[in-house]
Amino acid sequence: MTNTDNIIALATASGVGAIAVIRISGKDAINICQSLFKSINGKQLSKQKTHTIHLGHIIKDGKELDEVLVSIFKDPQSYTGENVVEISCHGSRFIQQEITQLFLRNGCRVANPGEFTLRAFLNGKLDLSQAEAVADLISSDNEASHQVAMQQMRGGFSNEIKALREELLNFASLIELELDFAEEDVEFANRDQFKDLINRIINVLKHLIDSFAVGNVIKNGIPVAIIGEPNVGKSTLLNALLNEEKAIVSEVAGTTRDAIEDELNIDGIGFRFIDTAGIRETQDIVESIGIKKTFEKTSQAQVVMYLLDASLVNIANAASINTEIQRIQNRYPDKPLVVIANKIDKAKTDLIKEQFNYKNLLLISAKENIGVEELKSKLLEFVNTGALRNNETIITNSRHFDALLKALEEIQKVHQGIDSGLSGDLLAIDIKQALYHFGEITGEITSDDLLGNIFANFCIGK
Amino acid sequence: MTNTDNIIALATASGVGAIAVIRISGKDAINICQSLFKSINGKQLSKQKTHTIHLGHIIKDGKELDEVLVSIFKDPQSYTGENVVEISCHGSRFIQQEITQLFLRNGCRVANPGEFTLRAFLNGKLDLSQAEAVADLISSDNEASHQVAMQQMRGGFSNEIKALREELLNFASLIELELDFAEEDVEFANRDQFKDLINRIINVLKHLIDSFAVGNVIKNGIPVAIIGEPNVGKSTLLNALLNEEKAIVSEVAGTTRDAIEDELNIDGIGFRFIDTAGIRETQDIVESIGIKKTFEKTSQAQVVMYLLDASLVNIANAASINTEIQRIQNRYPDKPLVVIANKIDKAKTDLIKEQFNYKNLLLISAKENIGVEELKSKLLEFVNTGALRNNETIITNSRHFDALLKALEEIQKVHQGIDSGLSGDLLAIDIKQALYHFGEITGEITSDDLLGNIFANFCIGK
Repeated sequence: MTNTDNIIALATASGVGAIAVIRISGKDAINICQSLFKSINGKQLSKQKTHTIHLGHIIKDGKELDEVLVSIFKDPQSYTGENVVEISCHGSRFIQQEITQLFLRNGCRVANPGEFTLRAFLNGKLDLSQAEAVADLISSDNEASHQVAMQQMRGGFSNEIKALREELLNFASLIELELDFAEEDVEFANRDQFKDLINRIINVLKHLIDSFAVGNVIKNGIPVAIIGEPNVGKSTLLNALLNEEKAIVSEVAGTTRDAIEDELNIDGIGFRFIDTAGIRETQDIVESIGIKKTFEKTSQAQVVMYLLDASLVNIANAASINTEIQRIQNRYPDKPLVVIANKIDKAKTDLIKEQFNYKNLLLISAKENIGVEELKSKLLEFVNTGALRNNETIITNSRHFDALLKALEEIQKVHQGIDSGLSGDLLAIDIKQALYHFGEITGEITSDDLLGNIFANFCIGK
Repeated sequence: MTNTDNIIALATASGVGAIAVIRISGKDAINICQSLFKSINGKQLSKQKTHTIHLGHIIKDGKELDEVLVSIFKDPQSYTGENVVEISCHGSRFIQQEITQLFLRNGCRVANPGEFTLRAFLNGKLDLSQAEAVADLISSDNEASHQVAMQQMRGGFSNEIKALREELLNFASLIELELDFAEEDVEFANRDQFKDLINRIINVLKHLIDSFAVGNVIKNGIPVAIIGEPNVGKSTLLNALLNEEKAIVSEVAGTTRDAIEDELNIDGIGFRFIDTAGIRETQDIVESIGIKKTFEKTSQAQVVMYLLDASLVNIANAASINTEIQRIQNRYPDKPLVVIANKIDKAKTDLIKEQFNYKNLLLISAKENIGVEELKSKLLEFVNTGALRNNETIITNSRHFDALLKALEEIQKVHQGIDSGLSGDLLAIDIKQALYHFGEITGEITSDDLLGNIFANFCIGK
């Protein structure tokens, strides 16, 4: 895994742009570039300082292929820790291709996905969890997931793990030492202090493991079921929620976002809306397919919104609506339920409040934009973003989650071992296992398979 | 048009990549960036040398938004001739958007299409025809159009025009001088030398104007009509021609090319294949719609390929095929016709050669890849790329073409004027008109409308 050959890849998004950046890393990156580059003022790239930019031409078969800017980063002051050259060329596909092929014919090979970051890890520029954060950072599309990735990239999470690992390692070596003096029955490792540490580790691990639920929400969005019959105003409501966001996005030219229907971003938290048909219309055929589907979809949600058309409510039909709401509540007692009376501009507020006496009742008019802000606040209320606001460490990576669960299991064995007066040599085995799982997260312990799996998910050029 | 406010745009292709580059140009570009950037080692950007790169963080509301590399280019040593900053950030859409919006709130505005290059022109870094070549360069997708754009960007064409303009200007001022001494009847401008110059200019202009036909082919590809009935093997042939190209493209990961059906690139020249149904099947209904269409399509082509299934030819049906070929030849006597006998691996070569005694007969098997190279050479034969090979100046821009035609018209008036002994003051009017059209090409003479039109076709960020 410790290749130092020269790798090349397009680092910017594929397609045509004003410019494109081609990145080359490896022992000979600068020399290879020099052999294909003619500086505008005859400078030798290898004699230039690191972090400098040079104007000139890429030369192919004696002809100028393109006018480019070449940026030089010298080992170890580069992203990968190797010599790195970044060629900023005109952004046509033809030029991108020609330059890349020219370098491929002159001592470079195409980089594997994530290979630049893999090299950064192997050269100690990043630990493994920081390297993984780079991929998260590039794919993050909202404030919250971006923040979590940034925090992880700064090493907040791995520093915490590393510190615990360090302390645990100290104790482990003391215990190992005891084994050497086994016949003398000494205790170098103070058992009370040791138990304190173990308790501390268990607390941290549990906290991190719990944060995964929040992290998952941040990464993937919160599923919200909207139960409502066709004309109650679901799409008007979604548009009302969406409109503001659209306005923000369109402020910046060239940043058109892929239209993902029914996915909203409120204050940096993603919400995925699951549209269900309601169960009222089929209430006499209890096992009908329609109801099954509604229940199926609702069960995937973390929050349930019940939407009704307030303008159609009267004393006669309010009871049947209440029956439906009750059935939903009974079926999902743990899921927060918001009852939304829409079209309130055309209804009698008193009647609605009287008939639907729910804690989470909202009176809105999606069309007139009444009460939409209250709905947003209500949705955010259900999200446990306390952790996010307090800048606490949040786990979003399922590999880390797995490793933490395994580490916790081992640490809990150690805890029991201390309580039951287990001998040092047996304690040491469990401690080693826990250390192993810690090391997996930060990359002190790796295998080629593990690294292969992690970096295969990267884009090429990173 | 001489704004010096601060403009910002994404310079790389839109979409997600490993990195993205955001470009800022303007008087305060470096200072604005400094106010939003925290260097990793506390450096002040404004105190750094031009063409240097600095690692640090973009800070938004006291938080680190992203770890970035900032490249500094100081007025006048930049693309636009102004202070320029290029921010190389992680390539998520979210980060691109956040950084751009942050700068928009801090003294920048979104750049118009081509505005960076417009500023380069206004600041004298490029003349107008070179600026136009930048857009051509970015959109060029084959060797030939790339070469022409590179040549134009290096200023080959505009230098030629400028030199002629200079000489013409000299003569014009001598003639103007004569007017001041009109009563003394002197001739400062030697009429024979002047006529020589005019002849020289006419030759150059004609040559450039003629090159537009070649230039157009290079820019847009050569239309080739394939006449052939359904099962003669058209798509197999196109695939055989295409396959090699596909292999080259797929060598470089991340350079997937938009699939443009029936468009090939042979040795850097683009060919557009126009599929027609053939006219044999409807030969008894002369004015049928099918034939009309075939003729319509064929008339757009510069080269005609007649494809037949050699395995189905016998002495009985050869005559009717020959009749069809004759009709095509008669209708388009000026278009080169290639008769291609496909599936030759299943036919008798002697019979085919005997029955179809054409100068441009090719025996091929698209399936077995026999004769495909010969076909390529044949197609290239028809292209007048002499100019290209000799590295001559080629016009591809229809604006330049128009200006050259108008300049030629005026120069020819001057020529006639000298012959008919026209007075200096009248000669001067025509010369001024010619000078005007020269100036239009290189940008010595511009209007806001003209510049607006030219740069509106650019992409944003260039």
